Amino acid sequence: MLGGDFAPLEAVKGVLRYLNAGGSGDRLVLLGDETVIADLLRTHGIPTNELTIVHAPEAIDMHEHPTKALKEKRSSSIAVGFGLLAAGRIDAIISAGNTGAMLVGAMFSIKPLPGILRPTIGAYMPRENGSLGFLLDAGINADCKPEHLVQFATLGTLFVKHILGIEDPRVGLLNIGEEEGKGNILAQAAYPLLKECPGIRFIGNIEGRDILMDKADVMVCEGFTGNVVLKLAESVYDIVKRRNIRDEYFDTFNYETYGGVPVLGVEKPVIIGHGISGAEAFHNMILMAERMIDNDLPGLIREAFAPANTPGA
Amino acid sequence: MLGGDFAPLEAVKGVLRYLNAGGSGDRLVLLGDETVIADLLRTHGIPTNELTIVHAPEAIDMHEHPTKALKEKRSSSIAVGFGLLAAGRIDAIISAGNTGAMLVGAMFSIKPLPGILRPTIGAYMPRENGSLGFLLDAGINADCKPEHLVQFATLGTLFVKHILGIEDPRVGLLNIGEEEGKGNILAQAAYPLLKECPGIRFIGNIEGRDILMDKADVMVCEGFTGNVVLKLAESVYDIVKRRNIRDEYFDTFNYETYGGVPVLGVEKPVIIGHGISGAEAFHNMILMAERMIDNDLPGLIREAFAPANTPGA
Repeated sequence: MLGGDFAPLEAVKGVLRYLNAGGSGDRLVLLGDETVIADLLRTHGIPTNELTIVHAPEAIDMHEHPTKALKEKRSSSIAVGFGLLAAGRIDAIISAGNTGAMLVGAMFSIKPLPGILRPTIGAYMPRENGSLGFLLDAGINADCKPEHLVQFATLGTLFVKHILGIEDPRVGLLNIGEEEGKGNILAQAAYPLLKECPGIRFIGNIEGRDILMDKADVMVCEGFTGNVVLKLAESVYDIVKRRNIRDEYFDTFNYETYGGVPVLGVEKPVIIGHGISGAEAFHNMILMAERMIDNDLPGLIREAFAPANTPGA
Repeated sequence: MLGGDFAPLEAVKGVLRYLNAGGSGDRLVLLGDETVIADLLRTHGIPTNELTIVHAPEAIDMHEHPTKALKEKRSSSIAVGFGLLAAGRIDAIISAGNTGAMLVGAMFSIKPLPGILRPTIGAYMPRENGSLGFLLDAGINADCKPEHLVQFATLGTLFVKHILGIEDPRVGLLNIGEEEGKGNILAQAAYPLLKECPGIRFIGNIEGRDILMDKADVMVCEGFTGNVVLKLAESVYDIVKRRNIRDEYFDTFNYETYGGVPVLGVEKPVIIGHGISGAEAFHNMILMAERMIDNDLPGLIREAFAPANTPGA
């Protein structure tokens, strides 16, 4: 409840939206300053007896060093949350707080699933027809090997299929040419591995111009290019807003619609929100966590990466 | 005159615009089918005696293999043009034709300047305040070493300073974090080299969100990321047009405004236009070639890369 620029107020409002939309309060464990949260819940007319509040009064600042902060601030909401997650007392964690601390928690408090070389986060890419693309890695794996991109393809496929509900998702390799053999050394090496990879529907290379088109549902690249693309797309949205351009399509660039992105490839659902998350974003993150738990995404990933299913590994 | 989707008509119209705007016909050598061009010039009321036409009737198709096409189509406008350029009979070459063939010509018919490890092409990034950023490499050097990025910084600086008229241009390293030490291995290694590089004004890292902002005038990255960024930006323009959004800023994304991009680091000015270049693009490419010749950009680059001036090389 303490993560994000507008916490805890917007987090509380997000909880309220979730409850008003029929969500059940007993699925929620709120981490933060007990008194502050209880007061805010009362102010918003939310019955506190439905919800579990765990007292975690410290906040990790956006600019703190993740590992250091997690170690020193043992009663921060993120540290306490990952403790509960690791102990199996909660099933998923959501925060709009320090992204680095969330990632460190995802890697070390809980663990990568067996066979996963590099857990990853993705970014949503909205398309004109209203559908969503999913680009990964979006910035945590700046240098990648070809086999990492192949794993991203599988992780992305499972996520968009079971959580976003895209049937038989198409996987594209982000590249700088259409034909096989084009691109940098990484993309050239990844292409044949993607072609051979079981369980994904590889459609070949896609280019920068295809990212916002309904061409591939899962778009894989290393996290350097992915992060530049994500931040460029976000800046286009900012420009569109600043210039008072009203357009249905560009409105879908609003991060609030998607809430947050999951860390894929770790033992439990971990969802990281944008620092400027508002009530809608928090609500959507809760819904995504529910879907990830209810559809057992970590279990599906575990199965896909079991030795018997990855002959190429 | 044979390059591009709307050649030779749009190329002729571009020549007409150049002449009507006070350009001198005796600076132009038109390469293409003599009869066709002479007819088109007459149709548009352009006095053919002012202009030199060199008969080069073959066209290299957009999808032909560059090296093969250049070797086999000796009377193509691109092959003939590079022959004249190498012989010193023309001072610059412009084409909206097969990009690969133009690059092969730039590398092998004429040569990289002494000390240049990798000639490069850039892309213009328009900013809201009307100024222009220049991102390089835009796609011909998919894999780069740190020293290549440093050379791009110098080449970009000389280009934007002497051709675009930006005083004391700021150089940014495209990266996925603000502080030194962030990024992939390439960016981490390039940062200290850029800090030490003489003759440039390095301002540190820039991120994807800064590309369309007035933060750095020269933005360096390897050609994989650069090409993805360029094509993504072009697709945003296409979407804006398709959705009938009328906005002064997004109008500046129109490639026509800039005409073409130079191949930097080779012995003579080589300008490559977009396949869909129209009259305005051709006109602007002629003006850019004039500035590159009149300011002796290759000479300035030669000087900057002379052994005495590159202590780090």
